[in-house]
Amino acid sequence: MHRLVVIPGDGIGREVVPVAVEILEALLPGLQTREADAGWDCFQRQGCAVPEATFDALRECGAGLFGAVSSPSHRVPGYRSAILQLRQGLRLGTSLRPVRSWPSLSSRPGVDLIILRENSEGLYSGREHLEAEGVAIAERVVTREACLALAHRAQDVAKARHARRITLVHKANVLPLTCGLFRDTCREVLEGEGWASELDERLVDVAALQLVEQPEAFDLIVTTNLFGDILPDLACHWSGGLGLAPSLNWGEGIALAEPVHGSAPDIVGSGRANPLGAILSTALLLRYHWQEPVLAQRLEGAVESFLWEEGRADFGFETTRVVGQGILAAL
Amino acid sequence: MHRLVVIPGDGIGREVVPVAVEILEALLPGLQTREADAGWDCFQRQGCAVPEATFDALRECGAGLFGAVSSPSHRVPGYRSAILQLRQGLRLGTSLRPVRSWPSLSSRPGVDLIILRENSEGLYSGREHLEAEGVAIAERVVTREACLALAHRAQDVAKARHARRITLVHKANVLPLTCGLFRDTCREVLEGEGWASELDERLVDVAALQLVEQPEAFDLIVTTNLFGDILPDLACHWSGGLGLAPSLNWGEGIALAEPVHGSAPDIVGSGRANPLGAILSTALLLRYHWQEPVLAQRLEGAVESFLWEEGRADFGFETTRVVGQGILAAL
Ligand SMILES: CC(C)[C@H](C(=O)O)[C@@H](O)C(=O)O
Ligand SMILES: CC(C)[C@H](C(=O)O)[C@@H](O)C(=O)O
Repeated sequence: MHRLVVIPGDGIGREVVPVAVEILEALLPGLQTREADAGWDCFQRQGCAVPEATFDALRECGAGLFGAVSSPSHRVPGYRSAILQLRQGLRLGTSLRPVRSWPSLSSRPGVDLIILRENSEGLYSGREHLEAEGVAIAERVVTREACLALAHRAQDVAKARHARRITLVHKANVLPLTCGLFRDTCREVLEGEGWASELDERLVDVAALQLVEQPEAFDLIVTTNLFGDILPDLACHWSGGLGLAPSLNWGEGIALAEPVHGSAPDIVGSGRANPLGAILSTALLLRYHWQEPVLAQRLEGAVESFLWEEGRADFGFETTRVVGQGILAAL
Repeated sequence: MHRLVVIPGDGIGREVVPVAVEILEALLPGLQTREADAGWDCFQRQGCAVPEATFDALRECGAGLFGAVSSPSHRVPGYRSAILQLRQGLRLGTSLRPVRSWPSLSSRPGVDLIILRENSEGLYSGREHLEAEGVAIAERVVTREACLALAHRAQDVAKARHARRITLVHKANVLPLTCGLFRDTCREVLEGEGWASELDERLVDVAALQLVEQPEAFDLIVTTNLFGDILPDLACHWSGGLGLAPSLNWGEGIALAEPVHGSAPDIVGSGRANPLGAILSTALLLRYHWQEPVLAQRLEGAVESFLWEEGRADFGFETTRVVGQGILAAL
């Protein structure tokens, strides 16, 4: 039996999440869902961006779908980004971000890669302070523990997709201790698991250029938190843009699916929000968390045949509805 | 009278630098040059990657051309990257990295942007330590002083190119103190100088994607050290690749031109090294340091007409020679 906490959040999160849930229910007839609150709107109503009840629900069910949240453009006392709180509070230590070509959307066929991002520390540690007037310090924290967890996830994914190449992305020429710890720990685990001949490395600046020039060269990328924020965004140019990009925040026995796009206040209510990012995020939940690769494949196959047939993913003011119904029909 | 310290360094640095110097001498008949040592080879001979004499020569002459240096792939006691030592030791607080379309090389016309990178601190502060067994910390240092220097450079460049847009790139939603200090200081200076209506902001992940999807949207980008390492590399896809990318390390009364490419040990001695990165770096020295915009324009114009005529920049094993003589002829 599968249970899912549904967290629409703000803005178009509320429009794409119901569509993705409806499709998931069609695939998993016994699915039990339960709605929970989070985000900026929630903060304004309740004084916190992630209520305890939401954490509890996720801990209990072990799986969630998060839509998107807005953030204030300037600092608001007491406010902390909902998604960062969820990632750290639930120890969702890895973010899995696939980028692949889709029929009729991608400017380039043959791209099919996954970026595994450390999701709990690095420059996202929250350790930032003023050392003196006019001197601010942020601490990039890299621990062996988090790198071990990430490397074991990398091993799982490498095995599941028969990875032909695993690329560690770092900046060890400038950050020998933190990037060195990341690199050495990942090497230790992955070489120990028999991936020595697939294992490779790139400096982050070189990797960024290569993701633009020759994205086919990559298969599985493993990297630290902030690099893993930047690289998937630029790579998703090849998959048809941010609107289609899925992700999975992934811990031990718990996972939170999350489209990479934001709450897009400018198109709220217009019908133009594309639900494919959310839909494809639930496919990641199926494949990696619930261990239902056949269902994941069916869902991604339905997206593929829908896109083949329609030749586009943008239906103007009908996008949310047409895409949702199209995928349901294709299933 | 113009004086230039010539630092070929390692690998193809020794092949492209003489070509760029010969061309610069043709433009500046009174140019006085003086060679100096730096790099991995120098470290192996003398025990330091940048001898004091090199620092002295640069301080005295105020201008240099740096080729490229190799780095050991693993940590070597006492070794520190020559270019990082030069940037910090000479207080070259800004790195100027232009990206523009070139005839017959660029996959996309109409790209013409400059990235100004803070060049002395951020994650390049050198402050990195082990906090405990398996816990490494790197400090991202942002000071008001360095941001002020950067912002004043941005003002100079914006004025020189009549910038239609200035984009501050940061990650203030995750790093409110360090990125906030960067942003607020840049805003203070640039708004004070009358650029309020051109001023804009982007998160680094969004900027990376937009540099791939719509590079024409940018004119002048101002950012911190590591973001300014990653963004120009990926953007130079539009200008014909890393081989052509120039940069200027720029301080108060002192500047060091540097092609962005590395020492490329795999092609040393083959004749295939492209000198355009080094040549275009000297054009930056002319325009921004020596205040010779007319000569800079002549040099860039010669590159442009050479590329128009030839339709390519790669002449196999004749590249270094053919490109060098072609630019000389075009002048
Ligand atoms: C919203 C923001 C905090 C987040 C991040 O930086 O991780 C987003 O950019 C992402 O990629 O999920
Ligand atoms: C060689 C390396 C230290 C350097 C950097 O990271 O700044 C290089 O990548 C650059 O862009 O100039």
